[in-house]
Amino acid sequence: MGILQILEPIRDEMGLVEAKLRQPLPQEHSSLTATIEHLLCSGGKRIRPALALLASRFYPTDVDKIVSLAAAVEMLHTATLVHDDLIDGALFRRGAPTLNSSWTPSMTILTGDYLFARAAFLAAETDNVQVMRIFSQTLMTICTGELEQQIEKASRDAESYYRRIYAKTAALLMAATEGAAVLSGASQGQVEALKEYGHQLGMAFQIVDDVLDFVSDKNTLGKPVGSDLAQGLVTLPTLYYLKQNPGGNSVSAVLDKSAHGPQAIAHAVNAIRQSGAIDEAMSKAQEFVQRSQQALARLPAGAAKESLHTLAEFVVQRKT
Amino acid sequence: MGILQILEPIRDEMGLVEAKLRQPLPQEHSSLTATIEHLLCSGGKRIRPALALLASRFYPTDVDKIVSLAAAVEMLHTATLVHDDLIDGALFRRGAPTLNSSWTPSMTILTGDYLFARAAFLAAETDNVQVMRIFSQTLMTICTGELEQQIEKASRDAESYYRRIYAKTAALLMAATEGAAVLSGASQGQVEALKEYGHQLGMAFQIVDDVLDFVSDKNTLGKPVGSDLAQGLVTLPTLYYLKQNPGGNSVSAVLDKSAHGPQAIAHAVNAIRQSGAIDEAMSKAQEFVQRSQQALARLPAGAAKESLHTLAEFVVQRKT
Repeated sequence: MGILQILEPIRDEMGLVEAKLRQPLPQEHSSLTATIEHLLCSGGKRIRPALALLASRFYPTDVDKIVSLAAAVEMLHTATLVHDDLIDGALFRRGAPTLNSSWTPSMTILTGDYLFARAAFLAAETDNVQVMRIFSQTLMTICTGELEQQIEKASRDAESYYRRIYAKTAALLMAATEGAAVLSGASQGQVEALKEYGHQLGMAFQIVDDVLDFVSDKNTLGKPVGSDLAQGLVTLPTLYYLKQNPGGNSVSAVLDKSAHGPQAIAHAVNAIRQSGAIDEAMSKAQEFVQRSQQALARLPAGAAKESLHTLAEFVVQRKT
Repeated sequence: MGILQILEPIRDEMGLVEAKLRQPLPQEHSSLTATIEHLLCSGGKRIRPALALLASRFYPTDVDKIVSLAAAVEMLHTATLVHDDLIDGALFRRGAPTLNSSWTPSMTILTGDYLFARAAFLAAETDNVQVMRIFSQTLMTICTGELEQQIEKASRDAESYYRRIYAKTAALLMAATEGAAVLSGASQGQVEALKEYGHQLGMAFQIVDDVLDFVSDKNTLGKPVGSDLAQGLVTLPTLYYLKQNPGGNSVSAVLDKSAHGPQAIAHAVNAIRQSGAIDEAMSKAQEFVQRSQQALARLPAGAAKESLHTLAEFVVQRKT
């Protein structure tokens, strides 16, 4: 089953989500509308809206409301990227220049704020108090995670890593599937099952992202290879590598800042690539994928369940 | 009627709002909790929560919900100040060092984001979809206003000024009174009346703020006099002054950047102080106050109405 087949049950709704994301609001300054269009155009995978739509398909759901939720999670994701790129000083994302590469920090901060507001507004369009609570709780989790990442990004503690990727990625995927289940009127047990699916899948998704930062190439990534390491961010491949090679090597030298520059990064990236750390990290991602698939057991059979099952495998097989 | 008398009907609830604002959440990093405490301690007037509480007093209202709304608007206000101070490079607010004066831009951005999230979470605690919509709509208005201010802050057009102060201040005061009226189950007409009261009062409030930036002193303001002018921000006193004295003077020189530095600012501030522009701006504020009081006509008599009526006058009489 390819990605097109996975998305087949929700093809029409994905188009509606796209239209909703891009619909300019009356009070928007024209330069803001153009900026949002640029941000949305730069080719995200739209995995979050797809998850929300698929997770709503077990029961008949009001199309407008589920489309609003799906758009809300994607808009929230976009908002966090704008501030993240500014904080990291990243110049490229998905091959396109970041907002902060051409705008002032002030305009970038305010555009991110506006996207947070748009996301909250889209979430409010679900007309569902429980969804709004999930949404605002998730926003808090993401923000505390980002703050923790600033403070603890060099931590070599696996628990800190898992806490960070939960806040950074899993929490929002979980909000997408849980919120969708709530909107579709699923039973409490089924809401829990879909929430758990999103949670486990989100963990796998971020581990794969962290692996791709080592094994992919600049053109596919749309940003330099080894960006995490260059920023001093310790991810799972680095953690596994350091467990085998605690110090006195090219990786620890980059993290200790005794080595820097593109050559030192390339050297450290190669060391990790050639170690068993990549396979080990991918096995861990696969474990999370299996847990996400197990969570689906409690849900009725059908096209939505099959798509969610296959989507979980797609997450570990993807190359971008 | 002094401010203590105005607040007498809501004394207990103001205490509950304060406690809710300062209650640390389980997932918060201890340094974040300490930062929030510092931000909340620095002596805001709590005019927004007071407005929400007073506007809810016409009908019996669930205390927990109205306290959540009041805390939500104050938290949202605090969040916007954090990003504003970073953008303006302001080192002091209300006499205390700003967050950005001691933290990195990254930590300041993320703390502001977290406060937005906390505000949304508090708003969701009202369990009211209409309130959530008002809240997220207001957040969008504030953000678009900030963006517009960045683009048009030197505009000498009165319409642009009024649009900016609506977005910057009036929209949130309006959300406080409208949201409170909704939570109290007021009739549609009364909701509109309280919304209009908050709107008009907010316009007056910001004009007085803009006047105080000229006529107050550094110790009372807690920041340098003439800060707006120094940042090239044209407010109502400057607009009135420029209408009488379009160019070739100390004020236009600061705005054109042909004069700068503390002496040039002091010279321009004095020129505006000694002109009729201050009185003219205060008359305009008084007009908005009267309109806010007229909006109260549709509401039942009682302590809440009297307090709101007097609060409107307090807004123009205040010195800080």
